[in-house]
Amino acid sequence: MKKIKLTVAYDGTDFSGFQKQPGRRTVQGTLEEVLGRITGESVQIYGSGRTDAGVHALGQVCHFTTSGLIPVEKYPYILRRTLPRDLLVYAAEEVPHDFHAQKSAMWKTYRYQLDLQPLPGIFERRYRTHVPVSLDIGAMQEAANHLTGTHDFTSFCSAKTEVIDRVRTIFRCQVCQEAGGLVIEVTGNGFLYNMVRIIAGTLVEVGKKRVKPEEIPFIIQAKDRQKAGPTFPPEGLVLVQVGYHPWTDNYARES
Amino acid sequence: MKKIKLTVAYDGTDFSGFQKQPGRRTVQGTLEEVLGRITGESVQIYGSGRTDAGVHALGQVCHFTTSGLIPVEKYPYILRRTLPRDLLVYAAEEVPHDFHAQKSAMWKTYRYQLDLQPLPGIFERRYRTHVPVSLDIGAMQEAANHLTGTHDFTSFCSAKTEVIDRVRTIFRCQVCQEAGGLVIEVTGNGFLYNMVRIIAGTLVEVGKKRVKPEEIPFIIQAKDRQKAGPTFPPEGLVLVQVGYHPWTDNYARES
Repeated sequence: MKKIKLTVAYDGTDFSGFQKQPGRRTVQGTLEEVLGRITGESVQIYGSGRTDAGVHALGQVCHFTTSGLIPVEKYPYILRRTLPRDLLVYAAEEVPHDFHAQKSAMWKTYRYQLDLQPLPGIFERRYRTHVPVSLDIGAMQEAANHLTGTHDFTSFCSAKTEVIDRVRTIFRCQVCQEAGGLVIEVTGNGFLYNMVRIIAGTLVEVGKKRVKPEEIPFIIQAKDRQKAGPTFPPEGLVLVQVGYHPWTDNYARES
Repeated sequence: MKKIKLTVAYDGTDFSGFQKQPGRRTVQGTLEEVLGRITGESVQIYGSGRTDAGVHALGQVCHFTTSGLIPVEKYPYILRRTLPRDLLVYAAEEVPHDFHAQKSAMWKTYRYQLDLQPLPGIFERRYRTHVPVSLDIGAMQEAANHLTGTHDFTSFCSAKTEVIDRVRTIFRCQVCQEAGGLVIEVTGNGFLYNMVRIIAGTLVEVGKKRVKPEEIPFIIQAKDRQKAGPTFPPEGLVLVQVGYHPWTDNYARES
């Protein structure tokens, strides 16, 4: 039995999210079906975490185990020919048996992409949330700096969150202007449900000068979802990268 | 009766082209149906020209006549709420009765968009043709310069072209590197069937050093479709802008 790690990109627009659901087109379901056909085995895919319907990925990580004889380096080529065009496997590598896409993950990077043009861009509408206002980007970065560090992020997760420990560490939160619009990029050791979408909604409130950057510490301290900004829609959200412990990567490279 | 000019953007991926066809989802068909519902009249849309299935537009121009009482400046707002998300009306203005979206057009600008990354970008795949090779961009621009001017473009149009006069003037043909890849932008007084897609295919042959820039004049002179490069796929092609005679625009602005 081999354990294989896949690095996967997808356009989330036409998927009902990552997690398998009967009768729905999902990332996990599509990967399991196609890998099942290729290997002739029943394949179970484990992802680094779910993504909601409409959320995209540039570097989602999954693993599965197989007793098949396909050389691991062939998977990206074979999968490129068999997967639909909105789901792409960038890389495949053999990993040690104690590797787990979710449990071994050390950090994740997400981007939230905004389209600031007066009218929504026709090539941006699937991947960026349209916010046709001028934003104070300096104030947004100042607010973003207040989010970094280790905090209880109860104010920044869905009120429906069932996880009890809401303490997470944000290593970096950067607001950058790009050709297509504005990007909020966040790296942390873990994210609560809707956390990046609420961070984006809150930073845009700051950009609109409805909230001051120095109010962010009080919003965090309140541990009250009502104090933060709105949950922004899924189409602007992209899972960019999932990081693993270095020895896992080394082992994978040497094996 | 008022004549109204619309500036329209669309993501061509899920349309069977511009021109109405029974039982197909087309840009013209969708606009006529929605405008028919809004005005309560039977509306006939005239475009500046057809675009093929999969081809996009940032600034396609159409016109229609109506005896309805909706103020012209309201159309973009009303249409934004009623049109599907992949079809967007950027502007509406009243034009003189002798304006015709196709017959009054003086020039058009098209872009052909390439994705040069080793693997196809998940956000680029609908709007860029994937060409995962390194290209000599200087040579491509040199070849592009040979295309400008007034020429018989028989070598650069589909062999199925029925138009007899194939003389067109290219005012500008620019090869530019962008964040997402490479763009070939062409402005001319008119374009033959598949012309921009064959120009793109030929310039990429030059970029791959399979054709030399100084061969372009001979390819043009041959008046033989076989001498030029391949017809590149529709997804990379974008109709950017349609230009009209200044007095038409002035008249429209004053009326």
